[in-house]
Amino acid sequence: MSASLSRARVGVWLIGARGSVATTAVAGCAAVAAGLHPPAGMVTETPPFADSGLPPLTSLVFGGHDTVDCPLPKRAEELAAGGVLPHGLPAAIAAELAAADAEIRPGGPAPGDTRDPEELIDAFAADIRDFVRRGRLDRAVVVNVASTEPASDGAALPPSSLYAAAAVRAGCGYVNFTPSTGLHHPTTAAEAAASGLPYAGRDGKTGQTLLRSVLGPMFAQRALAVRAWSGTNLLGGGDGAALADPAAAAAKNAGKERVLTDTLGTAPQGEVHIDDVPALGDWKTAWDHVAFDGFLGTRMVLQTIWQGCDSALAAPLVLDLARLTLRAQELEIAGPLTDLGFYFKDPLGEGPSSLGEQYTALVRFGQRLRGTA
Amino acid sequence: MSASLSRARVGVWLIGARGSVATTAVAGCAAVAAGLHPPAGMVTETPPFADSGLPPLTSLVFGGHDTVDCPLPKRAEELAAGGVLPHGLPAAIAAELAAADAEIRPGGPAPGDTRDPEELIDAFAADIRDFVRRGRLDRAVVVNVASTEPASDGAALPPSSLYAAAAVRAGCGYVNFTPSTGLHHPTTAAEAAASGLPYAGRDGKTGQTLLRSVLGPMFAQRALAVRAWSGTNLLGGGDGAALADPAAAAAKNAGKERVLTDTLGTAPQGEVHIDDVPALGDWKTAWDHVAFDGFLGTRMVLQTIWQGCDSALAAPLVLDLARLTLRAQELEIAGPLTDLGFYFKDPLGEGPSSLGEQYTALVRFGQRLRGTA
Amino acid sequence: MSASLSRARVGVWLIGARGSVATTAVAGCAAVAAGLHPPAGMVTETPPFADSGLPPLTSLVFGGHDTVDCPLPKRAEELAAGGVLPHGLPAAIAAELAAADAEIRPGGPAPGDTRDPEELIDAFAADIRDFVRRGRLDRAVVVNVASTEPASDGAALPPSSLYAAAAVRAGCGYVNFTPSTGLHHPTTAAEAAASGLPYAGRDGKTGQTLLRSVLGPMFAQRALAVRAWSGTNLLGGGDGAALADPAAAAAKNAGKERVLTDTLGTAPQGEVHIDDVPALGDWKTAWDHVAFDGFLGTRMVLQTIWQGCDSALAAPLVLDLARLTLRAQELEIAGPLTDLGFYFKDPLGEGPSSLGEQYTALVRFGQRLRGTA
Amino acid sequence: MSASLSRARVGVWLIGARGSVATTAVAGCAAVAAGLHPPAGMVTETPPFADSGLPPLTSLVFGGHDTVDCPLPKRAEELAAGGVLPHGLPAAIAAELAAADAEIRPGGPAPGDTRDPEELIDAFAADIRDFVRRGRLDRAVVVNVASTEPASDGAALPPSSLYAAAAVRAGCGYVNFTPSTGLHHPTTAAEAAASGLPYAGRDGKTGQTLLRSVLGPMFAQRALAVRAWSGTNLLGGGDGAALADPAAAAAKNAGKERVLTDTLGTAPQGEVHIDDVPALGDWKTAWDHVAFDGFLGTRMVLQTIWQGCDSALAAPLVLDLARLTLRAQELEIAGPLTDLGFYFKDPLGEGPSSLGEQYTALVRFGQRLRGTA
Repeated sequence: MSASLSRARVGVWLIGARGSVATTAVAGCAAVAAGLHPPAGMVTETPPFADSGLPPLTSLVFGGHDTVDCPLPKRAEELAAGGVLPHGLPAAIAAELAAADAEIRPGGPAPGDTRDPEELIDAFAADIRDFVRRGRLDRAVVVNVASTEPASDGAALPPSSLYAAAAVRAGCGYVNFTPSTGLHHPTTAAEAAASGLPYAGRDGKTGQTLLRSVLGPMFAQRALAVRAWSGTNLLGGGDGAALADPAAAAAKNAGKERVLTDTLGTAPQGEVHIDDVPALGDWKTAWDHVAFDGFLGTRMVLQTIWQGCDSALAAPLVLDLARLTLRAQELEIAGPLTDLGFYFKDPLGEGPSSLGEQYTALVRFGQRLRGTA
Repeated sequence: MSASLSRARVGVWLIGARGSVATTAVAGCAAVAAGLHPPAGMVTETPPFADSGLPPLTSLVFGGHDTVDCPLPKRAEELAAGGVLPHGLPAAIAAELAAADAEIRPGGPAPGDTRDPEELIDAFAADIRDFVRRGRLDRAVVVNVASTEPASDGAALPPSSLYAAAAVRAGCGYVNFTPSTGLHHPTTAAEAAASGLPYAGRDGKTGQTLLRSVLGPMFAQRALAVRAWSGTNLLGGGDGAALADPAAAAAKNAGKERVLTDTLGTAPQGEVHIDDVPALGDWKTAWDHVAFDGFLGTRMVLQTIWQGCDSALAAPLVLDLARLTLRAQELEIAGPLTDLGFYFKDPLGEGPSSLGEQYTALVRFGQRLRGTA
Repeated sequence: MSASLSRARVGVWLIGARGSVATTAVAGCAAVAAGLHPPAGMVTETPPFADSGLPPLTSLVFGGHDTVDCPLPKRAEELAAGGVLPHGLPAAIAAELAAADAEIRPGGPAPGDTRDPEELIDAFAADIRDFVRRGRLDRAVVVNVASTEPASDGAALPPSSLYAAAAVRAGCGYVNFTPSTGLHHPTTAAEAAASGLPYAGRDGKTGQTLLRSVLGPMFAQRALAVRAWSGTNLLGGGDGAALADPAAAAAKNAGKERVLTDTLGTAPQGEVHIDDVPALGDWKTAWDHVAFDGFLGTRMVLQTIWQGCDSALAAPLVLDLARLTLRAQELEIAGPLTDLGFYFKDPLGEGPSSLGEQYTALVRFGQRLRGTA
Repeated sequence: MSASLSRARVGVWLIGARGSVATTAVAGCAAVAAGLHPPAGMVTETPPFADSGLPPLTSLVFGGHDTVDCPLPKRAEELAAGGVLPHGLPAAIAAELAAADAEIRPGGPAPGDTRDPEELIDAFAADIRDFVRRGRLDRAVVVNVASTEPASDGAALPPSSLYAAAAVRAGCGYVNFTPSTGLHHPTTAAEAAASGLPYAGRDGKTGQTLLRSVLGPMFAQRALAVRAWSGTNLLGGGDGAALADPAAAAAKNAGKERVLTDTLGTAPQGEVHIDDVPALGDWKTAWDHVAFDGFLGTRMVLQTIWQGCDSALAAPLVLDLARLTLRAQELEIAGPLTDLGFYFKDPLGEGPSSLGEQYTALVRFGQRLRGTA
């Protein structure tokens, strides 16, 4: 099976294809495939997944939707100038960047666009089907890595749901790496459930929540009473600006708090702030302050400071999720991939919230992907 | 069985019985047993251990060895003045403190003491047997909570090993909560193995290493390459002074580094410092700086700051370990209790180093303790 | 002159007299006067002020207004339980606490109170005059240490301005230790200017802003370009709850940002958050993250974490300010005391914003207070 | 006078001319002179020094000694790869790098070198004189930016003192930017004092000590009692390796502690660690933990974390010092430049230790440099 896969080509269609995460994923896939860098941060390249029949990095073909025009090679140069991509990398993989750039189609709706939601979904689905046909791809997965959209009011379909519906209509698996609505809308959820396609989400776990998913269980297992858990995130780049919108921040924070409630058993005091700090560029800093009671009520404190590059944290997870979902679709595994909670702040299904247990579930899923052939 | 236990009385013999950890354990046991405080930090009081047949807190009788004279009630007042024990607690449990104080015997060897090791072991064992007989105790466990001793050269028996040998000779289970040698000496190890008694250790995991045992696995599971892990510990109290001795610090650091090597698969760069800062009293601060590489070699950093009260972190674990070992002895479980790695920096046996897996093993051990009756 | 002062008695009338800061100031004054504690945190007890003719601590008589009823000895016990006051202190100075408690009068307006502002000011002023007469005091100073009130709209007199006007009407100097309006209202400002009385403010500088007033100048003097300065404050106690009101927080943040703009020459990116975290009790934590550019645009970061007890930081400054203002009034120094910027986030006048220069101004003011006698 | 200077050329002779600091200074001088970057971090480019008659950046000519061979353009590329220099900068200033590279001479003594100290000093002085003559330079200053050498035993002249003696013999001013001995040796100190030349030092204040020089005075001015001040430095690059030598670290730490003792009035508890962490490259991280007592003995803590690029912090100060010393020599100001304490951990003379006062002294020195013309 992996022999056939090595000749096959599969598609990864990125919503937000000119963004930092998408650009880093495309560039990084090419760099790792060419042996220029080790696959740091890619869980699917570790030994437990060696026999899972995942599509090799060399078989991935990229395309996507975006509402902006900046060419991918130029975006890659910008990221290299900001220290997100290694200097020299954009030049070394110029062909792959140009190839992906040629497969990016305008997203929407643009201002003045008079198409109704159904027409938009059809147009997006047609873009994806063309991509698959043109590339003679065995299948494709759609991954949402666009900026977080404001929390929707539940009635109209927000853009993220239009793209998600298009993925289903085009016969593709779907991954929501953002806190946007995507398939979490009654209309699209029903379509997805009926489609026989796999889907996963939502909101990639790349920093503060990743830490919380190991520290929360630690406090619980040690029977230490967490009184307050407060956090501040400083984000530059587009993500910071998008999340300066309180509605978008609310969507993100719901996921962040879920992990605490689930792992601690109660919701501690404390707030989470997300600040837009353009001077940080693509870097983010998360400070957490945990006030807890020890034996006989003694007050103690844990603080954590996480300083990372958001795109570099997200991109390998995007590649992981694309590969896992493509393989699931090949094996006709349908519906929500609830074993992928390892990757998400707000995972589908009722799986565990502790990272350790989520990892165990992921490795088991990797074994299931070995199939029977 | 728990009915019979509730009438039974069992002993906890503490090496270093007038120290901060021992005093907090004695005071806290009385406070929790009397319903004055919830059992924060005691894992054995959580639901998974409800049916494990552990001796109830009300059944524990305390005694021990120490080389200093300060009465336990006075030590408790000192700890209350330093914020380790709640104000008013020493007065509320004065009877229990006095009772334990009456069961403390002089340790040794004192300067000028001419007894040879065998004589010392016999004398210590006699003290323990007298304690069991006088208290009509069903059994007793010996727990080493004395200050860390310098790393020994392997030939002569250090004091911690004299006490450990005495525990075996007196027919008691043994727990080494410190990095001192204890049963890790060829002579005493052989005696312990032949004794049919349970024993556990070593070096309680109360702060920096606790954090490392959840953060190390996080980096490994996410395939993030840790380049350097550096740490500084500021300790007041007696522990800080003892560990200012480079040889004692070396013993402690070996345990700290084991968890990184085991969970990361390699030993990262970086050192660990232990500083004596008397101004901190019984409080300690641990700063960790982790430099890791993300996707495409992007450099990122996690820092943690842990501010806790050492005695309040250690005491509930001491009570946990005493209860678990007493129950193991009751069920005639012999030899190293390798399922207790959850509690230790440098656990016996080849168990997992990740806290999550250690917790799973501990819960399973709790089920085993339910016995067959 | 200091000989006469040592026999004289002077008054300190506290608005918010049952609050944590006021209670700590009353208790601390008694404790230091009795020699129970050194005068840590009191700048007026350092050598440069030895000859400034300040009223001795033993000469200070306390009273004040408050809208709550809890007796001062009980408040002191609560603070001792929370670790703000040393255990045993409330008992040791019970007489002084009772004496101050007897001089506290109800503040207002209470709900249902139909008095108009003029009537309230007259009533408050009468309370203060009675206090001075009853105690045969040479003079008194009014210090506002009440909870921060919401930013006012400029028309109606907020409560803090009613008390400030009462201070003027009663012939007392006035200190505004909070960000509330106080004398910063056109009506009261005019009265104060005409009164010939000294006044000082506003908003005591006890933590994050104190740090900023030394770190801001450091960056400026080193020609390092600060790009973003972000901060989060976690406050328990009443202050946290009051500042959870966005309007109150806005008043406080204006002062915090002024020091950056003044010392750096420009306003950097970044926000300031004030979170109410009741679990912290009277303690506060302030985290600051400063992103700055070094040579050739290299990005660097400074982070600070300040963990302090708000009342213990504020109380000695309150005593300092009371003494300095009382002495100024004795010497008939009138109008805004612009040399006291050392103590305030948002000082009166156009003095320096750097702590070092403010300290120089304060020491010079101390020399001026030596008078001519 | 500045008109004549703008046509004049002056020399900067760097000991350790191929090191990171030297390379950054040479590259940065060219970049700022060409208008490619603003002069961030250069105090001599701020308004107070506009009329001080300092040699313009365009007039500086670089050369120096080093014991390694790697060409300066290659070193600059390495620094750009590590993020210390902006990408593209080495190419943009290739001519200036090549010119400086051509003026670097072998340092010593190399292994097997049989010359005695006098011969070495003469050879070094000849190199410097040749540089001045060849470049038709008005004068030159020698700046030591070599790796820290182990603390010397006081008898033999260590290498840093050989170079310092050569500077004096060649008629050049001298700046010791390191904690090495340099002119702090009886023999060389006497020569320097007799020479009529200006000299400055020692040990550039670029991170932890810079912070301490503003935080120490803050605690003192607020009358807060610092109980313990602990610090850990993580350094990559050559500096980390050099300071892993305990003797070299001891030299550095002496300077670090002096600022605390001087500003606080007493030496607090606490240690300073310097760790070599090669993974950090040219970056360094300094963590400080300050335990202090507030009013009534309440315990509080300040922590700071400084993350900077050592070369980018040091290079602009090196340029500042070179210009100030060259101008001093032009004005025939002789002996120790005690007004330059702003730049040093362990400054010459009995000047103030507070950064604010040191800045005042520096600005006054800048006024003195305006001369009488």
